[in-house]
Amino acid sequence: MKHLLIMVLACSGVMASVPGICDDNPPISEATQECLGCHETFHPGIVADWEKSRHAMITPENAMKAAMPARKVSSAVIPDNLKSVVVGCAECHTQHPEAHSDTFSHNGFKVHVVVTPEDCAVCHSQEREQYADNIMAHAWKNLMGNTLYQSLKQSIIGSPVQKNGRVAFAPPDSSMDATTCLYCHGTRLTVTGFEKRDTDAGELEFPVIEGWPNQGVGRINPDGSLGACTSCHSRHSFSMETARKPYTCKECHSGPDVPAYKVYEVSKHGNIAASQQAGWNFAAVPWKIGKDFTAPTCAVCHISLLTGADGAVVAQRTHRMNDRLSDRIFGLIYAHRQPKSPDTTIIRNKDGLQLPTDFDGGSAVSALIDDQEFQKRRETMQSICRSCHSTSWVKGHWARYDHMITATNTATRAATDIMREIWKRGYAPAPDKNLRIFDRAIEKKWSHIWLFDANNARFAAAMAGGGDYGVFAEGFYPLSEHLQEMNDWLEHKGK
Amino acid sequence: MKHLLIMVLACSGVMASVPGICDDNPPISEATQECLGCHETFHPGIVADWEKSRHAMITPENAMKAAMPARKVSSAVIPDNLKSVVVGCAECHTQHPEAHSDTFSHNGFKVHVVVTPEDCAVCHSQEREQYADNIMAHAWKNLMGNTLYQSLKQSIIGSPVQKNGRVAFAPPDSSMDATTCLYCHGTRLTVTGFEKRDTDAGELEFPVIEGWPNQGVGRINPDGSLGACTSCHSRHSFSMETARKPYTCKECHSGPDVPAYKVYEVSKHGNIAASQQAGWNFAAVPWKIGKDFTAPTCAVCHISLLTGADGAVVAQRTHRMNDRLSDRIFGLIYAHRQPKSPDTTIIRNKDGLQLPTDFDGGSAVSALIDDQEFQKRRETMQSICRSCHSTSWVKGHWARYDHMITATNTATRAATDIMREIWKRGYAPAPDKNLRIFDRAIEKKWSHIWLFDANNARFAAAMAGGGDYGVFAEGFYPLSEHLQEMNDWLEHKGK
Amino acid sequence: MKHLLIMVLACSGVMASVPGICDDNPPISEATQECLGCHETFHPGIVADWEKSRHAMITPENAMKAAMPARKVSSAVIPDNLKSVVVGCAECHTQHPEAHSDTFSHNGFKVHVVVTPEDCAVCHSQEREQYADNIMAHAWKNLMGNTLYQSLKQSIIGSPVQKNGRVAFAPPDSSMDATTCLYCHGTRLTVTGFEKRDTDAGELEFPVIEGWPNQGVGRINPDGSLGACTSCHSRHSFSMETARKPYTCKECHSGPDVPAYKVYEVSKHGNIAASQQAGWNFAAVPWKIGKDFTAPTCAVCHISLLTGADGAVVAQRTHRMNDRLSDRIFGLIYAHRQPKSPDTTIIRNKDGLQLPTDFDGGSAVSALIDDQEFQKRRETMQSICRSCHSTSWVKGHWARYDHMITATNTATRAATDIMREIWKRGYAPAPDKNLRIFDRAIEKKWSHIWLFDANNARFAAAMAGGGDYGVFAEGFYPLSEHLQEMNDWLEHKGK
Repeated sequence: MKHLLIMVLACSGVMASVPGICDDNPPISEATQECLGCHETFHPGIVADWEKSRHAMITPENAMKAAMPARKVSSAVIPDNLKSVVVGCAECHTQHPEAHSDTFSHNGFKVHVVVTPEDCAVCHSQEREQYADNIMAHAWKNLMGNTLYQSLKQSIIGSPVQKNGRVAFAPPDSSMDATTCLYCHGTRLTVTGFEKRDTDAGELEFPVIEGWPNQGVGRINPDGSLGACTSCHSRHSFSMETARKPYTCKECHSGPDVPAYKVYEVSKHGNIAASQQAGWNFAAVPWKIGKDFTAPTCAVCHISLLTGADGAVVAQRTHRMNDRLSDRIFGLIYAHRQPKSPDTTIIRNKDGLQLPTDFDGGSAVSALIDDQEFQKRRETMQSICRSCHSTSWVKGHWARYDHMITATNTATRAATDIMREIWKRGYAPAPDKNLRIFDRAIEKKWSHIWLFDANNARFAAAMAGGGDYGVFAEGFYPLSEHLQEMNDWLEHKGK
Repeated sequence: MKHLLIMVLACSGVMASVPGICDDNPPISEATQECLGCHETFHPGIVADWEKSRHAMITPENAMKAAMPARKVSSAVIPDNLKSVVVGCAECHTQHPEAHSDTFSHNGFKVHVVVTPEDCAVCHSQEREQYADNIMAHAWKNLMGNTLYQSLKQSIIGSPVQKNGRVAFAPPDSSMDATTCLYCHGTRLTVTGFEKRDTDAGELEFPVIEGWPNQGVGRINPDGSLGACTSCHSRHSFSMETARKPYTCKECHSGPDVPAYKVYEVSKHGNIAASQQAGWNFAAVPWKIGKDFTAPTCAVCHISLLTGADGAVVAQRTHRMNDRLSDRIFGLIYAHRQPKSPDTTIIRNKDGLQLPTDFDGGSAVSALIDDQEFQKRRETMQSICRSCHSTSWVKGHWARYDHMITATNTATRAATDIMREIWKRGYAPAPDKNLRIFDRAIEKKWSHIWLFDANNARFAAAMAGGGDYGVFAEGFYPLSEHLQEMNDWLEHKGK
Repeated sequence: MKHLLIMVLACSGVMASVPGICDDNPPISEATQECLGCHETFHPGIVADWEKSRHAMITPENAMKAAMPARKVSSAVIPDNLKSVVVGCAECHTQHPEAHSDTFSHNGFKVHVVVTPEDCAVCHSQEREQYADNIMAHAWKNLMGNTLYQSLKQSIIGSPVQKNGRVAFAPPDSSMDATTCLYCHGTRLTVTGFEKRDTDAGELEFPVIEGWPNQGVGRINPDGSLGACTSCHSRHSFSMETARKPYTCKECHSGPDVPAYKVYEVSKHGNIAASQQAGWNFAAVPWKIGKDFTAPTCAVCHISLLTGADGAVVAQRTHRMNDRLSDRIFGLIYAHRQPKSPDTTIIRNKDGLQLPTDFDGGSAVSALIDDQEFQKRRETMQSICRSCHSTSWVKGHWARYDHMITATNTATRAATDIMREIWKRGYAPAPDKNLRIFDRAIEKKWSHIWLFDANNARFAAAMAGGGDYGVFAEGFYPLSEHLQEMNDWLEHKGK
């Protein structure tokens, strides 16, 4: 009963300030009580984290009493056996047992290890539907099913071997994949068998899951679903507040390929957030611009349901995160419009490569969003900008952003022209049918330009993230230096 | 009337804890009430931010009742029409209409878009005067009016073009300048005309301002003034607390050229601030060392009015930020004494370049502060150090700092000697009258040493920011490596 | 009496929430009162910081009333003259005067400047004992007494000089050492004499201490002891809360050689901490997993006394920080098991170098911990993991971590094979008896691989710190690029 006491205390504290969040005596199912009985001792951190969560404090039935748009449960109907108890261990880990290949018999329950978007969808069906169509949900296949990206991956994390008197890179194994690229992209979880283990509660049998643990955004789950809600809503509090803070996104978006967090933290928005966020209300739904927060976090611009102080909706919540994105400023190899389908392996450029752009700078137009969708997404994003900025401010900002896309694509073209001349002259092996175009140092210098330098410059322009970062820290200084080095390299080889 | 209610609520919260901050019923001018009527709906973020500000909570007349040194209004006299109302939309955006080329007719008011230091000076005359003489206020001209820096800039953000079989960089256009260097330095705002726009409030006419938006420190304003108070006191709360936190300075001071923030966050001072600042009082004026805060932020050492717990003044407030700086450790190309004039375009070294130092290591002595001023500034800074450190601690620290300036200047000299040998032998085109001395990769390696590596080492020494940063992260490891690479390059060319 | 008032106020605030922390009227010794009389004015920051500390609020006698494991004073007996007064200036700075070569006569007291672990041991004997056996306490000698590391150091921070037509690096002087490497490792403090100074309190005499100031982890103190408790428990609050936050460790662990903080902040653990720590209890002893905090900081895994919510001990407190570490993933030059002795200068590899591994990849086995100790340390660490993660999660994580050690050691071997071929062919001078193996650019590229790139990849694997960091930001991208560049360099030389 200890956890009940803790919950009551928690409910009388922070959470209580949010109207309707807490039940006085939240009923816990018998099954969950049985789980807690042991796991409170074996995994105190898990239980304590859950105890502080919304899930532990209110039943779905009561949560559904909140009127839209404040309601957090998006499903219209909750199964009878779930609606009157809080969302505890058993409610998630015994959901849809037949669908999960990792289901195992555990003290009389059919338990599965990996809770998936299908399980969460019982209460959060709308978010699950949107996310399924989000490019992030397809991150595993989009990487692992793209021949060109596999070649790039192999040249980076592959195992160095001697081959014809040179270092070459053998394909990385699944463990290496899981620790590096798939840490963010998500692994494919496969039950390879079951094993008995001696535990403090006696001998028990558990599934052996290849690819586990993982919380990547495009994880392929034992029930076939894609993604992990825990990528952003980390277990076992599954907190909306945490997901609304930029530190969540930082986990996968601070490298030089997608430096969103790094740019954010040197932007005016990031400054205001860092300085003032202790006084903001991260728990409000809908999220009221200016009242609940003074500057955007990642979630504000890309995901959350926003209103003005008067309740007028500025942007609808979306878990298809590219809904508000017109361009993909992540260079592949040029910046380009967002793809139509979340499955990007179907894209072919004019040379037949699985790339949204050609080496010449053209786009695989038919695979990318059309003018109407492009304008619609821009308008959504700009309407958020205009909540705190005048129209002339917003127009000026976006004009510069567009200009930066053109400018960095021009620089990428200059680098690519040099690279093609190098291939043409045979100074580096020309791309073969295996697309080994990243295994020489000079080729990595080239990929540095469009994978890092140009991206940094574009992210800095997109997020008003500043001169110092986009010029000196990462961006134009290395871009121009790499371009000059490529030029020198070619010139030197020619002598 | 909603905003009044909000203000009363805010005033009963955080702000109320600061004595004398809040009026019970702060009077809002009729003009501002009219602004709020529409803009509350169109720009809820702006209005809500302002509503939480000091400006919205107290009239200048009441603010002036605070005795010095606690008073925040430094002007001796406030115009009658402004002193008895809070500082709202109209008070700033209709100030000095005749002086602003961006003034336009808007619902019967003469409104201007860009609020400038001259407008702020109505209440904050002392800060405006100091800032006008601050080197930062001249940041636009200091960059754009220096032939050598223009050459460096062109070699970094210029547009790559083919020229004589090599990649060269064409001059960047104004959009590129604005998104990169001038993002921090400030743009020149020029009204190029007026345009009609359909708005939710019908057809209205607005000025078209080239260079907008921008909040750079040396912005050239439509009234001819220099700078933007919003660089640090971000609109529309114009918060002193935010400006006192290091995240504000981070916006422009975290690249490898001026890595103040990066060094700060790995320093003992930065550690204490990050760990303990939630309990500090960022609103106190004067700012009491030890009582209000336990370790310095950027503002403590460089700007704020500081006293001991007994009220004895340790340092006077200054908005001429180099008032407490004896040296300029930003290498151009060597570290040197601070310049006398905030306009650095007038400096000439012995070779006639607009540089404070010669390639030989000498200084443009007559343009730099003299011994007396040098010692005075050191003494001011050291008196702040001594508030928390013994004299022997402070002496030891500064001796090492001086030694580091010498050591890194020696390293820059070694690199420059190699560079000059390369020019002499014609392995790279010698500097011509256009000062194109940055368009080869080897020249960028050289500029990397004095623009990044040596600066990093010096900032780390200056701020006790540590071994790990100044040696491995950025600083000596790359410095020594770049030096060795330059040496190898020259040796290889000679064969 | 002012400080008494402040303490009472502080005690009625934050600190009061911790039971038993505050005495109502904490008695201050006469000696300390005399110190405060002057230093309150001369060093207000020091006094104010101390006034907010536990030391100022409770006597050792009362602090010892807390039952284990909540007690913070680990010594069994406190001297009579100390136990009934708070721990003030005189209690520390006049402790063991005869043992301190920096003791000087000051207003009738025998005062010393540098408070050492021996002084702190009066109350904290257990922590002092553990720390003396911690590898960090030996950081000065471990660097300065290792011929190979001295050679590396000289090639990085040495003074560039011309030698045989090339840039070489002369040995760095003590000031340079102190500002860079020894800033973290600690300096050797030596009293070189005494000097008279005019002060606001008249002419006074003070010791002159070479190597001062410094707070490095392996500082050699004027009483011969090793280390500085202030490295982590920064003066003069000596706060446990601050030491428990990751910003403390960041001071020395964020460079690319030991990027613990940088990995932490992009990990799920770091995200949760950044998002939620404002609500955690950093003052609780013991520290209850899940209840007091939801995700680990550095101290949780490496130092602190941890229990479940039920009080069952999960890990004992240790100030020998490698107690829970099985491997040393800091490459020297390969990752290897932790050394047995904290003095690593005694280690010799098969070639007689003071290295724990051979260039071939083998280990100096006899100097490293044996299987039993290795397993014991892993078990301690894994028991912490299991507090919040299932056994299968923990097993999967550690299997990948082990695999990453192997993979990065393989990459280091490939780089080292190329380097040895270069030496063999005489393209760079082969290592001589002075071990000058870092003074060519190609050698720094090699050391970059094992000192930075491989370390980054391993830290990312160890702390589940993710793909983006360990692949793109720092880690495999530069590792593979450097390897390719070494290959190209060798190939080019061969032509």
